[in-house]
Amino acid sequence: MANFNFEDHPHRRYNPLTGEWVQVSPHRAKRPWQGQVEKIEEVKRPEHDESCYLCARNTRANGEVNPDYQDVWSFDNDFAALLEDIPTGSYEKGGLLKAESERGICKVIVFSPRHDLTIPEMEVNEISKVVDLWAKEYEELGAKDFINHVQIFENKGSVMGCSNPHPHGQIWAQETLPDLPAKKQENQLKYFESKNSNLLVDYVRMELDMQERIIFENEHFVALVPFWAIWPFEAMILPKRQISNITEMTAAERVAFADAYKRMTVRYDNLFECSFPYSAGIHQAPTDGKDHPEWQLHMTFLPPLLRSATVKKFMVGYELLANAQRDITAEGAANRLRALSETHYKG
Amino acid sequence: MANFNFEDHPHRRYNPLTGEWVQVSPHRAKRPWQGQVEKIEEVKRPEHDESCYLCARNTRANGEVNPDYQDVWSFDNDFAALLEDIPTGSYEKGGLLKAESERGICKVIVFSPRHDLTIPEMEVNEISKVVDLWAKEYEELGAKDFINHVQIFENKGSVMGCSNPHPHGQIWAQETLPDLPAKKQENQLKYFESKNSNLLVDYVRMELDMQERIIFENEHFVALVPFWAIWPFEAMILPKRQISNITEMTAAERVAFADAYKRMTVRYDNLFECSFPYSAGIHQAPTDGKDHPEWQLHMTFLPPLLRSATVKKFMVGYELLANAQRDITAEGAANRLRALSETHYKG
Ligand SMILES: O=P(O)(O)O[C@H]1O[C@H](CO)[C@@H](O)[C@H](O)[C@H]1O
Ligand SMILES: O=P(O)(O)O[C@H]1O[C@H](CO)[C@@H](O)[C@H](O)[C@H]1O
Repeated sequence: MANFNFEDHPHRRYNPLTGEWVQVSPHRAKRPWQGQVEKIEEVKRPEHDESCYLCARNTRANGEVNPDYQDVWSFDNDFAALLEDIPTGSYEKGGLLKAESERGICKVIVFSPRHDLTIPEMEVNEISKVVDLWAKEYEELGAKDFINHVQIFENKGSVMGCSNPHPHGQIWAQETLPDLPAKKQENQLKYFESKNSNLLVDYVRMELDMQERIIFENEHFVALVPFWAIWPFEAMILPKRQISNITEMTAAERVAFADAYKRMTVRYDNLFECSFPYSAGIHQAPTDGKDHPEWQLHMTFLPPLLRSATVKKFMVGYELLANAQRDITAEGAANRLRALSETHYKG
Repeated sequence: MANFNFEDHPHRRYNPLTGEWVQVSPHRAKRPWQGQVEKIEEVKRPEHDESCYLCARNTRANGEVNPDYQDVWSFDNDFAALLEDIPTGSYEKGGLLKAESERGICKVIVFSPRHDLTIPEMEVNEISKVVDLWAKEYEELGAKDFINHVQIFENKGSVMGCSNPHPHGQIWAQETLPDLPAKKQENQLKYFESKNSNLLVDYVRMELDMQERIIFENEHFVALVPFWAIWPFEAMILPKRQISNITEMTAAERVAFADAYKRMTVRYDNLFECSFPYSAGIHQAPTDGKDHPEWQLHMTFLPPLLRSATVKKFMVGYELLANAQRDITAEGAANRLRALSETHYKG
């Protein structure tokens, strides 16, 4: 029999950041699909929508009037999942039932006053203002005594639970380290302590050397499909030098980060010629007041589409109950993303 | 300020089976929803569908003809994610890239020749045959040298990636323990070794005592919303005595298990008066040839719906990148499920 090779044979890959595995079934992409298809939303939106609660000057459900903002804008989420002002306490029973109050702050980050745009359709200098606002929020929220983690993220597209197409993201900042960042903290620290080196810095060096999963790079950042990707076209944007958190970026790096964010999402839109849905977020050092040389900031994109603008990968049964699973290889996905144009298909 | 109580205040709950936390935001259910709504599929299906690849006597895409089965039937998945016959091997680079071949077998478990039925619409004696087939498959697959884990599951509804409404489930059996079962193995074993007692047996005793999260019970099984539930109406069916795996069930227990499966899914259908989608699966001891007194078999239901037949909970941004999060309490969900009738709304 032929030798094992991960382009053709089912296998598991290890994620050194989380300590978990992903099941890869490269041969499975050939399976026909007769299941649910998603709607394509290609309605042309107006630049300003009277009924949008994020557009400038509109009144929100709680009666507040939005400012006449000119570029980016942030405000406290009207339906925050985390609250600052709650009684603290905990509950415990027999070692099996355990609950703890959790304080936090949820913000909405509006990317542009233009209701009709998305990140891939914005200019790099406009996206840079989003990066600047992220840095400001990370710093201000993180400076609060009771905030130890700041999760910056974006849900794009209704298939990703986004209920308003106005370009925006969110920040959920809180007391404790959430599960996934906590795993990444643990594994980066373990690596740092045993090798006196940064896990993701070493990883990027290896990827740049191999050139098998790189999508593109600019002066300061690299975009790649991680070896251990779960979602079909999952990607990561990583800095070329070690950066624990976003406030450490130089002005030039912020612009380069915005450039990478735009180029990545333009490629995504071009993949199936649609406004490509995803959840994306930045993982970076906790805001616990300590130094974190073990941390390398990175932005992760988790897009659900698998075969076309309307057929997504369902993370269900086996994936929810047993193990992450994917149907195409990271290398195949990287090849396709690398080959795409960086000019938006809408022209 | 009022004292902390988990009916009203945002908090985290610990899952002793996985060692992970869920963020609970009880106040958040009031949030309006303007996002994606799901289609309701209430087309009346025929008892036999010529174009269905699971109906008896039909020819599948690969040319095979289905047998004229009378109750349940299983066969090897035509598009298996795991394969038996692959070259084995592994790949490693710099401690950061790690891959290992993974052998396995994927089967389809057909619940009934009737194309138009679902579990809540089947009779308990018919569902018992499904349980018997699960036991037979667990035993036969598990007996193979290279199979150490047998994952039995069902994806129901197109929103859960099910591409054929003919009542069926799947089994993915494989060499290694998948991530979630591995965590449950680890935590149950730790508990067993430190307390000389079974984690879930103790947990069920506590829940029966408290009567806050119990949905219903029969002679041998309990259905409850676990304290640490993630999905809005997540539920678990657990035996009243310790059972490591399905082959240990007595004949009476198999019937009682079928009864619980039916009653749970009837309640689900009645919740929003629709064919209620979910992924469900059985977690039980590995098939590694060892004794597993630390294991308590349980069936978990992960249903996506939150507010109605058309509005689901999106597990996106924060949930994918940071931490599991829910908008209603486990106690509130249990109250609603407990209050429902066990007569199917279709009559
Ligand atoms: O094999 P099926 O039923 O077509 O596929 C379904 O269940 C599988 C196991 O949970 C998933 O990997 C697929 O994404 C889903 O569509
Ligand atoms: O607050 P939003 O954008 O309405 O809500 C969306 O993102 C949240 C954070 O990922 C999720 O909890 C919600 O399920 C989703 O619909």
